[in-house]
Amino acid sequence: MEDSIITISGLDTVWVLIAAMLVFFMQPGFALVEAGFTRAKNTANILMKNFVDFMVGSVLYWFIGFGIMYGAGNGFFGEFHLFDYSFFGDTNVPAECSLIFQTVFCATAATIVSGAMAERTKFSMYVIFSIIVSVLIYPISGHWSWGGGWLSELGFHDFAGSTNVHACGGVIALAGAMILGPRIGKYTKSGKSVAIPGHSLTLGVLGVFFLWFGWFGFNPGSQLAAEGSENAIAIARVMCTTNMAAATGGLAALILTWVVYGKPSLSLVCNGVLAGLVGVTAGCDLVSIGGAAIIGLICGVVMVGSVSFIDKVCKIDDPVGAVSVHGVCGILGTILTGLLATYANGDVAANAGLFYGGGWDFFLVEVLGTFAVAAWAFTCGYVLFWVIKKIHGIRVSARIEEEGLDIYEHGETAYNS
Amino acid sequence: MEDSIITISGLDTVWVLIAAMLVFFMQPGFALVEAGFTRAKNTANILMKNFVDFMVGSVLYWFIGFGIMYGAGNGFFGEFHLFDYSFFGDTNVPAECSLIFQTVFCATAATIVSGAMAERTKFSMYVIFSIIVSVLIYPISGHWSWGGGWLSELGFHDFAGSTNVHACGGVIALAGAMILGPRIGKYTKSGKSVAIPGHSLTLGVLGVFFLWFGWFGFNPGSQLAAEGSENAIAIARVMCTTNMAAATGGLAALILTWVVYGKPSLSLVCNGVLAGLVGVTAGCDLVSIGGAAIIGLICGVVMVGSVSFIDKVCKIDDPVGAVSVHGVCGILGTILTGLLATYANGDVAANAGLFYGGGWDFFLVEVLGTFAVAAWAFTCGYVLFWVIKKIHGIRVSARIEEEGLDIYEHGETAYNS
Amino acid sequence: MEDSIITISGLDTVWVLIAAMLVFFMQPGFALVEAGFTRAKNTANILMKNFVDFMVGSVLYWFIGFGIMYGAGNGFFGEFHLFDYSFFGDTNVPAECSLIFQTVFCATAATIVSGAMAERTKFSMYVIFSIIVSVLIYPISGHWSWGGGWLSELGFHDFAGSTNVHACGGVIALAGAMILGPRIGKYTKSGKSVAIPGHSLTLGVLGVFFLWFGWFGFNPGSQLAAEGSENAIAIARVMCTTNMAAATGGLAALILTWVVYGKPSLSLVCNGVLAGLVGVTAGCDLVSIGGAAIIGLICGVVMVGSVSFIDKVCKIDDPVGAVSVHGVCGILGTILTGLLATYANGDVAANAGLFYGGGWDFFLVEVLGTFAVAAWAFTCGYVLFWVIKKIHGIRVSARIEEEGLDIYEHGETAYNS
Repeated sequence: MEDSIITISGLDTVWVLIAAMLVFFMQPGFALVEAGFTRAKNTANILMKNFVDFMVGSVLYWFIGFGIMYGAGNGFFGEFHLFDYSFFGDTNVPAECSLIFQTVFCATAATIVSGAMAERTKFSMYVIFSIIVSVLIYPISGHWSWGGGWLSELGFHDFAGSTNVHACGGVIALAGAMILGPRIGKYTKSGKSVAIPGHSLTLGVLGVFFLWFGWFGFNPGSQLAAEGSENAIAIARVMCTTNMAAATGGLAALILTWVVYGKPSLSLVCNGVLAGLVGVTAGCDLVSIGGAAIIGLICGVVMVGSVSFIDKVCKIDDPVGAVSVHGVCGILGTILTGLLATYANGDVAANAGLFYGGGWDFFLVEVLGTFAVAAWAFTCGYVLFWVIKKIHGIRVSARIEEEGLDIYEHGETAYNS
Repeated sequence: MEDSIITISGLDTVWVLIAAMLVFFMQPGFALVEAGFTRAKNTANILMKNFVDFMVGSVLYWFIGFGIMYGAGNGFFGEFHLFDYSFFGDTNVPAECSLIFQTVFCATAATIVSGAMAERTKFSMYVIFSIIVSVLIYPISGHWSWGGGWLSELGFHDFAGSTNVHACGGVIALAGAMILGPRIGKYTKSGKSVAIPGHSLTLGVLGVFFLWFGWFGFNPGSQLAAEGSENAIAIARVMCTTNMAAATGGLAALILTWVVYGKPSLSLVCNGVLAGLVGVTAGCDLVSIGGAAIIGLICGVVMVGSVSFIDKVCKIDDPVGAVSVHGVCGILGTILTGLLATYANGDVAANAGLFYGGGWDFFLVEVLGTFAVAAWAFTCGYVLFWVIKKIHGIRVSARIEEEGLDIYEHGETAYNS
Repeated sequence: MEDSIITISGLDTVWVLIAAMLVFFMQPGFALVEAGFTRAKNTANILMKNFVDFMVGSVLYWFIGFGIMYGAGNGFFGEFHLFDYSFFGDTNVPAECSLIFQTVFCATAATIVSGAMAERTKFSMYVIFSIIVSVLIYPISGHWSWGGGWLSELGFHDFAGSTNVHACGGVIALAGAMILGPRIGKYTKSGKSVAIPGHSLTLGVLGVFFLWFGWFGFNPGSQLAAEGSENAIAIARVMCTTNMAAATGGLAALILTWVVYGKPSLSLVCNGVLAGLVGVTAGCDLVSIGGAAIIGLICGVVMVGSVSFIDKVCKIDDPVGAVSVHGVCGILGTILTGLLATYANGDVAANAGLFYGGGWDFFLVEVLGTFAVAAWAFTCGYVLFWVIKKIHGIRVSARIEEEGLDIYEHGETAYNS
């Protein structure tokens, strides 16, 4: 670090560490959303998977994930820095600060998948999957744009991870749900979809509030600095855009379900809020509050349609709507950034979206980038699950599924008197 | 902003943004308190109302509420700044930072009302109400003291909103509960009050802890700055006074119920904590920790009496005690500030309470201000609910009330197996 | 404070206040863990005890605890500063900031005990106990190392309280569980241990996540400063070591229960996470991330063995495993600091653990210190509970225990329809 002119800032460190804590708090958020929207007999299993994601992610991202993602390497792959994070120096925050912030992001990507695979996946296979995501799938595509790889060379912008975290997790979730097949009883013999209500909307709503709260770390924290008026303005604007997209995403789902189904659906409002949050994550630093409101509205509407399409037309059983919320809205939000970007942020080139006088270049790079990452993650996930299925079986037996995974997989029931 | 000598501070921005996040976290707190203290058959409806308050508030406060409250205007009304928040410049934090901080406060005021109207209000009417509070009732009286209006000219002091947020919300809650009438089964034919226990004290207690946590943003954050020793001392003292009033409020309810009813009541301890917090909010920057302890004790005791009085004497059905906690203790805490203020804070005139050698002027302004805002909010709320009742009906049918609002209003039940 | 050259730092104050808020948030964490791991009929009682701990602690620590712990005094006891916290001046943060940070720590120590004594303790006796811990047991031993007493003279290092908070609380919990005796039905006539499952693993897991989150205030906040690169590096490293020990503690319990019992146990993973957190708390500033991983692994394994040993061999009924998690791992973590310390932190002498070239001195002081505090706390707790038992009885009647404490002690049930 000789000749470094960048000095470590206490304020920036405090900001990023607090943001990392908030992103950590998304873990109980995901756990509650997934537990609340599924049945009581599988609750212990779901909670355990959320623990595993974060514990495995914490260890393995430190082991090699961080190096693969942020090591110099080439355009496609970083470097192996086994347990050594000191390569990530010469910034405004300590290397340990960067490590913990990136670790909590990695764990988020893995956690997204568990909801779509809930209520029928073998716990042992889930652990293997969680390991692969943490050490390989997420860090490699993450390197492309955040680690200085080929997408960043092209000018791809994904501020806090609509693509790198959410689309990545969401399309792996799609692959998992496809390979697993639907839960027993989800489709009638004639192919009609049957709603399987979750065991507690209270837990689900609480989880959404936690995620919303945690997103104030996820997005504003991704500025990675707070000192100086430029950074202060950026983090304040990002908090406003993040909150606005959440609000309009939820309102869109509220109004749409009220008009279409006759009653405002609480579970779709929950997913509408998340859809808005996922959608705005790519461009929360480049869009205006008005732009964020539009992104939220579009994502909320598209999510409602997508949930219905995947369930009724594709006949893919995604118990919590993770594919629509994270996969579809992650891709959509990245593309919308190419349309609605209007501010410049820091050393990011002052890209403007198509609607604000920008050229096609930026827009097309956004499209290319998000589909490239989604294709990578989907392919990896599909191959991985297919191999697991062939070698060892990925799904519990019908009897276990019907009686609940908690007793058979963990020897415990979540609820007792 | 030319010739501005105020520069944006990164530290102040971080502090206020984190405070805004904590105030946001009061939303799940309110949701849990209200859900826990009511019956399971209405839980989805209650959770939905909390979502609506925050989503509608986020959009509409940005739309015109912020301008009405903080725009220059005159002593009674700010200005319309449609979606434009840049008028709020020239401070130590970015305009976006002020916008989000004020937005979460606005949403809190609206949310207070839903508890008192729980288990019997039409969802559609609640949405209309939430809109009116966010765009009109709250911003107008907020302008009087926080936006440079007539109350601020008089020297009225309401640091974080005992009056502007809690009394405002609490008296609207009173108006709503009066217009609605009691829940079916709440009073026997002979007029005797029947306790209707909530479905989960665990949720209620968790909600109180969330609110207590969020109040550490609400009160200390209202200093709006942290840089420099003067601000650092102020925020630290406000955190201490806030915590102490919460503790003594809860202890007062604990001891009083133990002595009077023979058993310490958990639900009243919950409300005692909230009563202390509401009470100290007006003067948390001007009172000593000892003063805060006294405010908490008084509010805890008065709350217990008020809950009983409103329930048994007035026969007004307030399922969660919102009128007593927020309305009564909001007014009371503002008045107690006029007695117990002993410090000066920043550019606030060094007002001293009556008990610390201050004159009658400051005390009487506190009394005047809190009753003026309460009168405004109660009148608006009463007229609004009365009009809604006449035009469209405000209450669900008896059958829906008895079978639960969740199925009829939202097509979902909160709990399943 | 004349001639003071230490000036109050806004950034340090913000950091410590936010840390205090996070430690406060451990209160709902403890409440949920304890409530979730016990039966529904005692839930209101458990929640009430958590409230009492924090409310009583807030008042009494301010009353005399703070002075006893941090007043000058001698090597064994501070001074009485009734309600006066201004003696704690001349630091980088306001005295009020130190007061609130130390208050939330005190309340944590008291709260640890309630889990081990759950489901059979008289509420009135618990209140008396909570008072004694807050005013006497915790502040006195706290003075020995944190208040400049004899242990600090010897060079004892307990950064955030593996010994002062967790071992202290954990051994008092042991004394309480011993004096109380097991719950009815916990052991068969032939002495066989019967598992009594808790009523909600969902609440338990949520509580563990809250505690994990709160520990990011507990440990990194104990640096008491964030300004300057040295502090920034310290707090970032402490957050990493804290998180890593939690992860490996949970993984250790996961793998061990999977191998030994055939199924990965969610409740033991919960306690494994907590065991790792407790263990790393003493040396989180002095060990590397690798050292933290080792501490977590060891504590996770030892905790599983300890829970089984205390339950099956000692026949002591500790419903939530508090003795093993806080007592055993608190002592163990302090000793491991003497082996694995490798960094110096601030004005702490650059002690190195035995494994990193340090001498026996530091290691032996760690052993001496943790056992001295544990012996003090256990003796005080044992005598206190014994006296309470003789004078007034400490345990509810068999009938109340069988029907649940909620109705008899508080006149309320936690759950209704």
